Amino acid sequence: MQTGCFFQAQTEPGSADIALLGLPWDGTVSNRPGARFGPQAIRRASLGSEDYSPYRDADLSDLRIHDRGDLELPFGDTDGVLEQIRTEARSLLNDCPRARPVFLGGEHLLTLPLFEVCREKFGSDLFVLQLDAHADLRSDYLGVEFSHATVMNRIVNICGLENTALVGVRSGSKAEWRRLGDHPHRFAGPGGRDLHDFPAFVKDRLAGRPVYLTLDLDVFDPALLSGTGTPEPGGIFFPDFIRVLEALRSADVLAADIMELAPDYDSSGVSAAVAATALREIMFLLVKS
Amino acid sequence: MQTGCFFQAQTEPGSADIALLGLPWDGTVSNRPGARFGPQAIRRASLGSEDYSPYRDADLSDLRIHDRGDLELPFGDTDGVLEQIRTEARSLLNDCPRARPVFLGGEHLLTLPLFEVCREKFGSDLFVLQLDAHADLRSDYLGVEFSHATVMNRIVNICGLENTALVGVRSGSKAEWRRLGDHPHRFAGPGGRDLHDFPAFVKDRLAGRPVYLTLDLDVFDPALLSGTGTPEPGGIFFPDFIRVLEALRSADVLAADIMELAPDYDSSGVSAAVAATALREIMFLLVKS
Amino acid sequence: MQTGCFFQAQTEPGSADIALLGLPWDGTVSNRPGARFGPQAIRRASLGSEDYSPYRDADLSDLRIHDRGDLELPFGDTDGVLEQIRTEARSLLNDCPRARPVFLGGEHLLTLPLFEVCREKFGSDLFVLQLDAHADLRSDYLGVEFSHATVMNRIVNICGLENTALVGVRSGSKAEWRRLGDHPHRFAGPGGRDLHDFPAFVKDRLAGRPVYLTLDLDVFDPALLSGTGTPEPGGIFFPDFIRVLEALRSADVLAADIMELAPDYDSSGVSAAVAATALREIMFLLVKS
Amino acid sequence: MQTGCFFQAQTEPGSADIALLGLPWDGTVSNRPGARFGPQAIRRASLGSEDYSPYRDADLSDLRIHDRGDLELPFGDTDGVLEQIRTEARSLLNDCPRARPVFLGGEHLLTLPLFEVCREKFGSDLFVLQLDAHADLRSDYLGVEFSHATVMNRIVNICGLENTALVGVRSGSKAEWRRLGDHPHRFAGPGGRDLHDFPAFVKDRLAGRPVYLTLDLDVFDPALLSGTGTPEPGGIFFPDFIRVLEALRSADVLAADIMELAPDYDSSGVSAAVAATALREIMFLLVKS
Amino acid sequence: MQTGCFFQAQTEPGSADIALLGLPWDGTVSNRPGARFGPQAIRRASLGSEDYSPYRDADLSDLRIHDRGDLELPFGDTDGVLEQIRTEARSLLNDCPRARPVFLGGEHLLTLPLFEVCREKFGSDLFVLQLDAHADLRSDYLGVEFSHATVMNRIVNICGLENTALVGVRSGSKAEWRRLGDHPHRFAGPGGRDLHDFPAFVKDRLAGRPVYLTLDLDVFDPALLSGTGTPEPGGIFFPDFIRVLEALRSADVLAADIMELAPDYDSSGVSAAVAATALREIMFLLVKS
Amino acid sequence: MQTGCFFQAQTEPGSADIALLGLPWDGTVSNRPGARFGPQAIRRASLGSEDYSPYRDADLSDLRIHDRGDLELPFGDTDGVLEQIRTEARSLLNDCPRARPVFLGGEHLLTLPLFEVCREKFGSDLFVLQLDAHADLRSDYLGVEFSHATVMNRIVNICGLENTALVGVRSGSKAEWRRLGDHPHRFAGPGGRDLHDFPAFVKDRLAGRPVYLTLDLDVFDPALLSGTGTPEPGGIFFPDFIRVLEALRSADVLAADIMELAPDYDSSGVSAAVAATALREIMFLLVKS
Repeated sequence: MQTGCFFQAQTEPGSADIALLGLPWDGTVSNRPGARFGPQAIRRASLGSEDYSPYRDADLSDLRIHDRGDLELPFGDTDGVLEQIRTEARSLLNDCPRARPVFLGGEHLLTLPLFEVCREKFGSDLFVLQLDAHADLRSDYLGVEFSHATVMNRIVNICGLENTALVGVRSGSKAEWRRLGDHPHRFAGPGGRDLHDFPAFVKDRLAGRPVYLTLDLDVFDPALLSGTGTPEPGGIFFPDFIRVLEALRSADVLAADIMELAPDYDSSGVSAAVAATALREIMFLLVKS
Repeated sequence: MQTGCFFQAQTEPGSADIALLGLPWDGTVSNRPGARFGPQAIRRASLGSEDYSPYRDADLSDLRIHDRGDLELPFGDTDGVLEQIRTEARSLLNDCPRARPVFLGGEHLLTLPLFEVCREKFGSDLFVLQLDAHADLRSDYLGVEFSHATVMNRIVNICGLENTALVGVRSGSKAEWRRLGDHPHRFAGPGGRDLHDFPAFVKDRLAGRPVYLTLDLDVFDPALLSGTGTPEPGGIFFPDFIRVLEALRSADVLAADIMELAPDYDSSGVSAAVAATALREIMFLLVKS
Repeated sequence: MQTGCFFQAQTEPGSADIALLGLPWDGTVSNRPGARFGPQAIRRASLGSEDYSPYRDADLSDLRIHDRGDLELPFGDTDGVLEQIRTEARSLLNDCPRARPVFLGGEHLLTLPLFEVCREKFGSDLFVLQLDAHADLRSDYLGVEFSHATVMNRIVNICGLENTALVGVRSGSKAEWRRLGDHPHRFAGPGGRDLHDFPAFVKDRLAGRPVYLTLDLDVFDPALLSGTGTPEPGGIFFPDFIRVLEALRSADVLAADIMELAPDYDSSGVSAAVAATALREIMFLLVKS
Repeated sequence: MQTGCFFQAQTEPGSADIALLGLPWDGTVSNRPGARFGPQAIRRASLGSEDYSPYRDADLSDLRIHDRGDLELPFGDTDGVLEQIRTEARSLLNDCPRARPVFLGGEHLLTLPLFEVCREKFGSDLFVLQLDAHADLRSDYLGVEFSHATVMNRIVNICGLENTALVGVRSGSKAEWRRLGDHPHRFAGPGGRDLHDFPAFVKDRLAGRPVYLTLDLDVFDPALLSGTGTPEPGGIFFPDFIRVLEALRSADVLAADIMELAPDYDSSGVSAAVAATALREIMFLLVKS
Repeated sequence: MQTGCFFQAQTEPGSADIALLGLPWDGTVSNRPGARFGPQAIRRASLGSEDYSPYRDADLSDLRIHDRGDLELPFGDTDGVLEQIRTEARSLLNDCPRARPVFLGGEHLLTLPLFEVCREKFGSDLFVLQLDAHADLRSDYLGVEFSHATVMNRIVNICGLENTALVGVRSGSKAEWRRLGDHPHRFAGPGGRDLHDFPAFVKDRLAGRPVYLTLDLDVFDPALLSGTGTPEPGGIFFPDFIRVLEALRSADVLAADIMELAPDYDSSGVSAAVAATALREIMFLLVKS
Repeated sequence: MQTGCFFQAQTEPGSADIALLGLPWDGTVSNRPGARFGPQAIRRASLGSEDYSPYRDADLSDLRIHDRGDLELPFGDTDGVLEQIRTEARSLLNDCPRARPVFLGGEHLLTLPLFEVCREKFGSDLFVLQLDAHADLRSDYLGVEFSHATVMNRIVNICGLENTALVGVRSGSKAEWRRLGDHPHRFAGPGGRDLHDFPAFVKDRLAGRPVYLTLDLDVFDPALLSGTGTPEPGGIFFPDFIRVLEALRSADVLAADIMELAPDYDSSGVSAAVAATALREIMFLLVKS
């Protein structure tokens, strides 16, 4: 019998290794909306994909996953939504004391309350690894300060630029790019270090360190993942992503999110399939066998 | 040479009969977004449709249209957007003293500031005719008070239920329907009077009266117009719409909006073509030959 | 929190008024497949549609619904699938002694085992009302005897042609049409009685009688419902459907199915929205307020 | 074994009742192209539809059909294409002395050479019945005299306005509409006579008269048939079409074309299915049982 | 004049170099169906692509191709379909004694009877080269033993794992992957040898050896080929495919199939264009100039 | 306020650095039409993409762009269209004496009159760099001499093969390929030099030389850009394109066109986004900071 849960996940909160929560909201997206349909689409796509990872020789059936479902978030009240997410994320972490959380977006702004709550729980040493096509470092967007285009500015204000790393950024305003010019840890994309240097960076700087991984799916080249609000050519492909995860195994990735899947823009379903496979691999990164 | 303006409209504001303004915003839409793309889609579709109306024996080339373009509205700040629209709509009406305005949405909440500004200008006797599949009479939606689902509640609070009429409503909550039960002027849809009674109603009650016409395009049956956020079966077809407009010729329709075209849900382009033809006919209603 | 269940339905089997089961299988469909995606699509569409019916002045929140989820049915083994469905349907009816079942297909062949099990439970007097574009009366299709094109032949062999009625049939082979020529109760479509005669027929012949309602969604005109395997022009529209249900209130409809939604053929989502609204109305037919 | 021929049609030219020819060309279409894909789409759709007509109690297997295939027509040379079509149509009529031709377009301009060749063969008494949303009576379009928008002007110049009738016209320029104002035989659409008067018209004026039937598929309401270049709301539905064909049985329809299916605009496939069913019914009009 | 045949192929069976047969069947596909539309889509796409290969400096007009058309295969009877394919494939090989066959699927299970018949004809030394994203080595799938997910298990049981090679496999269950762990000839994908080693492998092990090439199109990265039932990221691109074919020129490829194109999932038509180009190149591999 | 102009470009002709003109025409396209919708789609996509180029550290706001809009070109008269384009392009260059022109197609044939006019203005030394999947060197196509398939043959007849270079060509007839065999400057694609040799070629042969850059967007791999009439696998990706532009900085690129975007074939919008980003980068090549 099939239910709506990811992987028919039935694990009780108390014993879960992974806690999953969906955030179907895209209220500040200024270009093409639709990331609100992301969590549902990832769950559906995961029904048609393998549970076994040949990259990790691991199987989802070996994980204890608690799927909390999707929040019901109102449109038209950004502050209320951010506060509701903080509350629900805290509640999830409390209910699942052994679990590492994975959040499914939804737009990238939602990483802000998620990161805040994870930092409360996992400590202020929490490093942020951003996989993204866009810098998201604006101070405001058309006067709106809490926006998918400003989220990393907010987060950097909390944890400091030096406690973040970026992979795949290739689009931003001149002002954002000026700021990125100083960035110590930027990989792939114009002006970034070669992605081949990423494993050494992780080994040197992140070995054993707690990490929050935020995957804006538009980091993938739109050839592979077209179902996102603002596609940018020149992105990474799936083998690059696998290599990034492989490198991260020496860090301690405690929490992750997968954001900005807008599935309706890709009628082929490939974008959702890629996201579901990325979710599987991220779970095996959070819970190492 | 083709420009982005409707009907290549070049009329200066001061001499315009019709003033056109686009409002590409759908920030409170809780179901399927995309009405933000409505104004552009209507303009594009009008390039491929006839300027001449065989229903009215009139031609767009006989009208003086000022196309103001589309506002640039931020997502994530509903109050700011409503205020910006009030400001811009007032400015448009001031700049075009002879013109009757037509607004292209965007979501239905935007009818609220548009109606407010028109009521300022045209007087408190302004009657509201709502063509819509949904009652939009909720007091709030998931706690949000300014929403596409509450817009008519706000408007009715301003002008009184008795100064509105509804055509085509066939969906709402039990509470909304209780309120509709008292409605004196409801046509088509379950519990409504027959649409054949509409001309007599206009003749009796609206002859010469100033009217604001708000066309939520989901009033059409989704067989005809599938490109909208929340389609509801059981709607009207195009000949019904023409008959409604024909009846309205004895009223004095001073302003109109066309809302809730979400063109990306109809890959055939028919929805936008219907909206463009409806726009043409509404213009001939506003400026009678 | 949103789950994958219809209307977040949490009612325990023992106290349910309605028992819902999805059957995502279309293994004998010879033309365009995809009805396997029907149950999921109806559930999703119902999230975006109203719970309240203005046709019945009733609300889904007043019903006690048990949603069993979807069966996991193998492709490539028709006999096994039919047997599995019989087993699971029996189990559902046993577990929900007070409930009337609604089944979501899936292809129309699956009505055969569902009807068989319902007849076991509800008795051999169970009448079959078929809303369908196609006669489905073939004896075989390319040599295959259990097929979506033969299902009504199988059922008629069980209960007799006189214990069935048809609405909307407008396509079939010459042989099928010869057989339909003798049919006492056929409405709408070429050669059928006028749909306006249907209420009188129900009153005369079905008052109080137990009825199994099978709704092949292609009975709707493809203008309204394009997401089905074999669309046929000339079908009914939604107000016709409402009138059919209204007429059926004097019968005792004990069980129903909604089959042949192939949602991927309708990228607008209208077909699924129509199916979800039809499901809501059928529930209020099964459990009269 | 399935071939690409319509209905696997293998009849030799000499003994054919029906001669079928496809014309995949849309070189003067100024709005949305794609009618070049019409013939292929109609053939494919006919694989999935019934051979038996319940409207006529007749089966395609009782007809002897010669399917000539599709012409290979160059883009960029309108004169050459029109001449090539004249040559190939003459050749087809010569090779199939007993057959009545059916042509599958392609854009409506191609009706001009087809009509000319049929008039050569069937005589100058050949009446033209046009089912169309558009008048197609322009004298030129952006200076181009041979265009889908001028085709009926060309034809009327040959046979006279009084030897044509129109059904469903609802769009045109002011000049075209002035000309239509004089038209003695116009049905449905603004200013036209009621379609219920059509049977009497046929009986009075066309009984036994040779008729060329040109079906521009945009005569159908775009709710039903969205796959066409320039959709216009307010058209006919399938039962109307069946009634038109029924009325025409007292005339002598010698030739027909089905034009302007642009299938790629209707991803549901319904438009092609409607066209294929219309083709079946037209064949039974040409060859009465 | 265009017919439905590939490349208008008119060669008589007896003198053909290439014999082409389409198998529009996908009856055991458990995830997303639609490979039944593959053969038609490849034929259509080949109308729009070049006959000349710049990779091989060869032209399809230099080949003698017999296009048998597509089998008409019933859904709902797997055994019957497999037997019918064996019969028809034998018949094709008998009728075309000089030809090398190319089969167009359809789902991958159909490779089983095709391989069996080719092995009868070409001898038990026939090696199998599988290009595929999935291992297809399951012993059953939900209890069904003859399935697209088990086809290579069936084939390996006939010819032995050592007489097969795999390119591009990147998905499977844990059990399948255990079996693949022993595989001597696996290239590309996690755990496989580098594709650059493939030419040496062919030279060493397959020089002059008879080979059956089965191309499951999902071997391509879904960025390039999204129109398939179960897309998997991390696949090969077209230049890789060309290099595989180049390497195979030292082997003796006697038969080939192209499976699992589900064209409706890729509305851009690119997937079918890629398949048609792959078909052209495979033909030049079968018949070397 | 948003207008239809690119980048809201308001620069007066006399002071413009860049002059932009759209050419929505695809009248000789024999395969899949739709490039007529290219200019509109590129303008729309540019609304959603960044103005800043991280590749060049330059911002569109630093350029003075005059957007002339789109020509209104009739279908059905190739000669007239070519002449109209010559006239309008001359007029544009006269009105904008300081500007370098960028043309947005439309089909590739339109490069012929554009190149002719630019050669008049910029001198007979003007070199042509063609980025394209197809050779376009046919002498005629189905007898039509002015066609998208013959455009480079026409241009080569004017300037000589040695004054052209090609990147990415991978499709053509045998005759075209024979001619390409002699080509001194061909990069990427079968038989071409490695793209890594392109910078040296530019440095050696094009340093300071006036260049006309014609970008047929099908040069991109259809994985990335599927929205084009005749996709060919094996093309370049975006980083390759950036490298080509980088190399060209030592030449003097005076004029450019971007042709063959057929946006409707790519419902994801990625193709238009890629084209808009390519346009941005080409502008920074024409006007070096």
